[in-house]
Amino acid sequence: MEIGKNIQRVDGPDKVSGRAKFTADLVPAGALVAKIVHAEIANGWVESFDLSEAQAVDGVTHIFTCFDAPDIPYPTPGHPWSVDSGHQDVMDRTLLTRRVRIYGDDIAVVIARDTVAAERAVRLVRVQYRELPPILSTDEALASTGEPIHENCPGNLLKRHEVNDRNYAAALAAPDTVTVTSSYQTQQVQHCHIENPISFAYMEGQRVTVVSSTQIPHIVRRVVGQACGIPWGKVRIIKPYIGGGFGNKQEVLYEPLNAWLALQTGKTVLLDISREETFQNTRSRHPIRFNCTAIVNPKTGRLLGRECLADSQQGGYASHGHAIVANAVTEFRQIYLDELGHHAVASTIYTNHGTTGAMRGYGIPQSAFASECLMDDVALAIGMDPLEIRKLNCMPLGFVDAFTNMTCRSSGLLACMEKGAAYIGWANKRIEYANQTADLRRGVGMSIFSYKSNVYPISLETASARIIMNQDGTVQLHLGATEIGQGGDTVFSQMAAAAIGIPTEDVNIVSTQDTDVAPFDTGAYASRQTYVTGKAIKDVGEALRENIFAFAAYLKNTDSEGMDIQNRHVVKGGKPLVSLADLAMNAFYDLNHSRHLTAEVTHHCTDNAFAFGCCFVEVEVDVPLGKIKPIKIVNVHDSGKLINPKLAEAQVHGGMSMGLGYALSEEMKYDDKGRLLNGNLLDYKLPTAMDHPELVAMFVETDDPTGPFGNKALGEPPAIPVAPAIRNAVLHATGVALNQLPMAPQRVLEAFAGAGLVKNWEEA
Amino acid sequence: MEIGKNIQRVDGPDKVSGRAKFTADLVPAGALVAKIVHAEIANGWVESFDLSEAQAVDGVTHIFTCFDAPDIPYPTPGHPWSVDSGHQDVMDRTLLTRRVRIYGDDIAVVIARDTVAAERAVRLVRVQYRELPPILSTDEALASTGEPIHENCPGNLLKRHEVNDRNYAAALAAPDTVTVTSSYQTQQVQHCHIENPISFAYMEGQRVTVVSSTQIPHIVRRVVGQACGIPWGKVRIIKPYIGGGFGNKQEVLYEPLNAWLALQTGKTVLLDISREETFQNTRSRHPIRFNCTAIVNPKTGRLLGRECLADSQQGGYASHGHAIVANAVTEFRQIYLDELGHHAVASTIYTNHGTTGAMRGYGIPQSAFASECLMDDVALAIGMDPLEIRKLNCMPLGFVDAFTNMTCRSSGLLACMEKGAAYIGWANKRIEYANQTADLRRGVGMSIFSYKSNVYPISLETASARIIMNQDGTVQLHLGATEIGQGGDTVFSQMAAAAIGIPTEDVNIVSTQDTDVAPFDTGAYASRQTYVTGKAIKDVGEALRENIFAFAAYLKNTDSEGMDIQNRHVVKGGKPLVSLADLAMNAFYDLNHSRHLTAEVTHHCTDNAFAFGCCFVEVEVDVPLGKIKPIKIVNVHDSGKLINPKLAEAQVHGGMSMGLGYALSEEMKYDDKGRLLNGNLLDYKLPTAMDHPELVAMFVETDDPTGPFGNKALGEPPAIPVAPAIRNAVLHATGVALNQLPMAPQRVLEAFAGAGLVKNWEEA
Repeated sequence: MEIGKNIQRVDGPDKVSGRAKFTADLVPAGALVAKIVHAEIANGWVESFDLSEAQAVDGVTHIFTCFDAPDIPYPTPGHPWSVDSGHQDVMDRTLLTRRVRIYGDDIAVVIARDTVAAERAVRLVRVQYRELPPILSTDEALASTGEPIHENCPGNLLKRHEVNDRNYAAALAAPDTVTVTSSYQTQQVQHCHIENPISFAYMEGQRVTVVSSTQIPHIVRRVVGQACGIPWGKVRIIKPYIGGGFGNKQEVLYEPLNAWLALQTGKTVLLDISREETFQNTRSRHPIRFNCTAIVNPKTGRLLGRECLADSQQGGYASHGHAIVANAVTEFRQIYLDELGHHAVASTIYTNHGTTGAMRGYGIPQSAFASECLMDDVALAIGMDPLEIRKLNCMPLGFVDAFTNMTCRSSGLLACMEKGAAYIGWANKRIEYANQTADLRRGVGMSIFSYKSNVYPISLETASARIIMNQDGTVQLHLGATEIGQGGDTVFSQMAAAAIGIPTEDVNIVSTQDTDVAPFDTGAYASRQTYVTGKAIKDVGEALRENIFAFAAYLKNTDSEGMDIQNRHVVKGGKPLVSLADLAMNAFYDLNHSRHLTAEVTHHCTDNAFAFGCCFVEVEVDVPLGKIKPIKIVNVHDSGKLINPKLAEAQVHGGMSMGLGYALSEEMKYDDKGRLLNGNLLDYKLPTAMDHPELVAMFVETDDPTGPFGNKALGEPPAIPVAPAIRNAVLHATGVALNQLPMAPQRVLEAFAGAGLVKNWEEA
Repeated sequence: MEIGKNIQRVDGPDKVSGRAKFTADLVPAGALVAKIVHAEIANGWVESFDLSEAQAVDGVTHIFTCFDAPDIPYPTPGHPWSVDSGHQDVMDRTLLTRRVRIYGDDIAVVIARDTVAAERAVRLVRVQYRELPPILSTDEALASTGEPIHENCPGNLLKRHEVNDRNYAAALAAPDTVTVTSSYQTQQVQHCHIENPISFAYMEGQRVTVVSSTQIPHIVRRVVGQACGIPWGKVRIIKPYIGGGFGNKQEVLYEPLNAWLALQTGKTVLLDISREETFQNTRSRHPIRFNCTAIVNPKTGRLLGRECLADSQQGGYASHGHAIVANAVTEFRQIYLDELGHHAVASTIYTNHGTTGAMRGYGIPQSAFASECLMDDVALAIGMDPLEIRKLNCMPLGFVDAFTNMTCRSSGLLACMEKGAAYIGWANKRIEYANQTADLRRGVGMSIFSYKSNVYPISLETASARIIMNQDGTVQLHLGATEIGQGGDTVFSQMAAAAIGIPTEDVNIVSTQDTDVAPFDTGAYASRQTYVTGKAIKDVGEALRENIFAFAAYLKNTDSEGMDIQNRHVVKGGKPLVSLADLAMNAFYDLNHSRHLTAEVTHHCTDNAFAFGCCFVEVEVDVPLGKIKPIKIVNVHDSGKLINPKLAEAQVHGGMSMGLGYALSEEMKYDDKGRLLNGNLLDYKLPTAMDHPELVAMFVETDDPTGPFGNKALGEPPAIPVAPAIRNAVLHATGVALNQLPMAPQRVLEAFAGAGLVKNWEEA
């Protein structure tokens, strides 16, 4: 059985040897180079351009401004299309824009024969603006009476929705309760994938091809068609290996503009986005402010009701917009059971800050920060152990969501908590670190979360897969699902091997997606691929088996009753009938009945599954320095059956690192003009190897009855629980509740000063 | 109906604008460059190398000699594999060879960082040989008692076979007959495709990819596996647009060596073959000497028997070997009916000349030269009109071959002859030009031929095809069959459109074959693709229709009874039910039953069909100059139904041009060392535009019941009949029978002198 094996990454040797081909490796010689002219105001209008100096630069071949580009609004998020217009994404982008909504908005583009000429010309484009005051917070945006950021969105409120689950008022009115109210604020952070967005586009006949670093080639195809106003069948997207995405490339970023440039010029045009542009112009994680209340029975520790009021700052364009804060408040509600009722209001508000979108966890790192801070605050208020109160209130096996009917059919959540607690030495250390007064103090903290394994039933879940058999009995696995660095290709190969009954080494994955020939799949997001695409792989493996058995029956003049595949042979009644290699050779070359053995299926998925996990952290807090140092950190995950435990562990390590940066150092900072101050990897404080303790990943394997191989989500969850666990450990160590991320030294010190732990620190 | 429409070439705009991507356009920056060291003897052994000077060249990274390369014999012809080892091709090649069999044999290879370094190092490789006398004719080869060219082939006879059809002896013994015996000699010519063989190879994991200019990617995959001794599933071949092949790229030329270099170095290695190497080291048309006899009833003009003894010169390696002369003697036999019997002996003989292989017409340009010269000689001998004797004796409708059961189910041959004769003004000019004595004389000549539409039942015929539907109701057509400049992609698109019921512009052909994902098809040769692949396209179009109808039935809650596709809509009972675009959108995005609408099939083909044609020529002969000038030339073809008449016409023009060079000027010439003297496009006399009269192509459309759309072979036939028609026109003009090709001035003048038409020309 290939499931559960620590197969080495199928893309490993090529990636470590530098042989793997990324988009930049494929750019043909002689491609023209496009560079974007970005606005130097955050809010306002482009009135006119003076292009004379730019056009005079040697090597410049074309300049297109927002006055040349089509005025076709299109959406950018990587969601499956809906044929129901009421469920379609907000279309608030155009290829280039006269209406400037963020500092750095795309207002023109220069094309030249080389990068130097293009960049020189960009600097020589003169722009006349009509400037408006920048709107730089959600409160300002909601209060603004001036020109709205989008004219069809007066008041800058993109969307607000309210959830009333049973009777929250009854909880408020219940006698003998303790009520805890607090506010939690998360910050805007960037994905910081190693490879920036890069694409090049060229024409083939009347059709345009874009080779792009994306997570979602089939969705990019659709949006390029929409944005350029051409039939979707005239668009071809090719996705080579990519250097990470983390959700930023679950967005259709610059492919439409790149395609349009090829359509306009008829030439091959490269559009290579810099790191600074990636920070400023692509997407980031939504900063969300949560105002939360919990009403708890102090005797039993049971939650009676909670309220979650979440304001999410969207920045200049809708992108994934409200879906993220909606996901956040849903998880906030689902992770614990409120006995009487739950109330939530979620709002998504445009500002002139950089646009936010999908990022690993899709709102849940934010909601988990709120819900897990709140639970520790409640535990503290009623004097209960944070582990115990979670065990008591967390989502139980069999839970059915009242709104979506999504059901919890497997749960290792309690076991995860026990495993994590044991590793960290919870019980002893909660006592040991209870009362400290020294400069260096220790604490242990924890957090939990749930995470869905795809987007059903909110949206469509569908995946197609194809298998092609070779003469030697090996196969190609052909998917629309994408390897984005997460190890997808390896586990897909294992799944196909398991489904067919052959070793993983006999499966060659077609890693590059070409939308002209790849089976349709919406792509890498929502931790969906091992679950949804996994089902398609299982189906297509079974379809291929049927084809193999039918050919074996023909070849051996028998029937396919009782056939199986073992040791690279078709067996019948347990006895070898024909080797797969011989069978395949005959299938290709039989003089009476040649057949290319292939199979292709679509799996329409109407299942979903809750994955779970928790984080336990021990920190050392240097009180006078305001410095938090994680000493021990462990994530324990229930992601159902693990397809490849070693890869799962690596996935968890990466997520924990992302969580660490989110907790302690990362934050996009703006000046009062709305200009990003630290949009580069020097000033933006991504944690380095030196900032990491040993990362420990543990698993509780359950066998989910709906997962294709018992598996559930794993891609995004590891990034979720680290920040609140650290915050709660600091609370344990110091008694100070840090309710705003990141917990960087200055902010920590201010909080410690506020709590009287340090004095006169500003003078010190 | 899309069949029979003059659709513009789907690859036309990209090819004329220079946007089309050929192999050279795809070579990644930084690829290493390989150059081959060629032997400087024609027969013998490499004893040793001195590489010291070559290795010292700056930029040289590797040198591999024949002592390093694996000693795995492999075949090179582009034939379908046979699982029966008795029917497999001769395996007489190795990647590099110690045993030198042709001048220029591949004995070592230098790899360097650039072309200059590689070529410099090649010139500095010192080689010690043990030289043997070169064997430069078939007679010498058969008589040789020395070391054979291949040690397992003593006497250098690769193969000989004899055909006894009924009773040729009875014809010989028949009373009152006229017997004509003559010898006809064809020459060695080269394909002269514009793009030389070029490939580059690189590793992906344990697998090797070769991007190559080939007609037969799936066969190249297999042979690379054989030659490198690796499983075929570990090989991936990608075929971009190619600049012609004409059969030379129906051969696995340098892809195995290129793959092996990537396997050895782990690097991307380019192997770009020069024009001189293409002449010397790839393939060419077999020179065949025919000794023919015809026994005819002089009263009726009926053939009683014919004999054809054919010696084919193979050169140093087997390549397609005996298959070509076997095909030649078969067509010689089939094109006319011998009343009493037929006798043939065909021999293929190794020499140290350059290797011969497949070339447009596959032996039939040679056999047609013999059979059509012979028929004019017979007509002359009995005083009958050459047109009449052909009409009387040619293959009739309903003909069944006694050996293969191949049946003539459609024939426009007689109608072709009539159409050609009318165009050229046959009857009048045969009389008008009967007796001329001036220096400038005119004559009219003709020839006919038959040609099969694939290789069944000699070998396997199989083709697979896949269609992928897009959201806008357009489709991709995904084939293993190859566009090689002949217009295949255009007619495939028309066929798919016809099979589905949509306009051709809604079909996007996937022109590049990638053996990892392309359906299996043996490729472009034997004029098979419109016939065999056409059947697969018809089948897959029908399979897609079924899928479309099933989804329409689901969508509209009805059944698929009486559904059809008209005007981009599914209609039922003649009324529009749903547009294809709406249907496709729902298929992709239906929330209850999403399906990626695709279809994939294999067609195993057990049909074949005779295509026919003829050529009529009027020439002007300048007797004192020995110069033959075609004045008017027309090919008339019966290729069944024409898919695209304009493209068919273009195909005929190209073939006629090739026939003209074959007739008048082209010939590969060797010195007594076996060294090719004119292996370049300056010294090798390919006809230029100035050498062409207006080329006229005409058709007689039949509707073959076995062709997928009534169509039959057209790719190769146009090259066949030109040379004998010109020869016969010269015979008509001068009474001189030119029995050796090419009919270049020196040879013509010698013949005229021999016949007494010119005197003392050598002194003149």
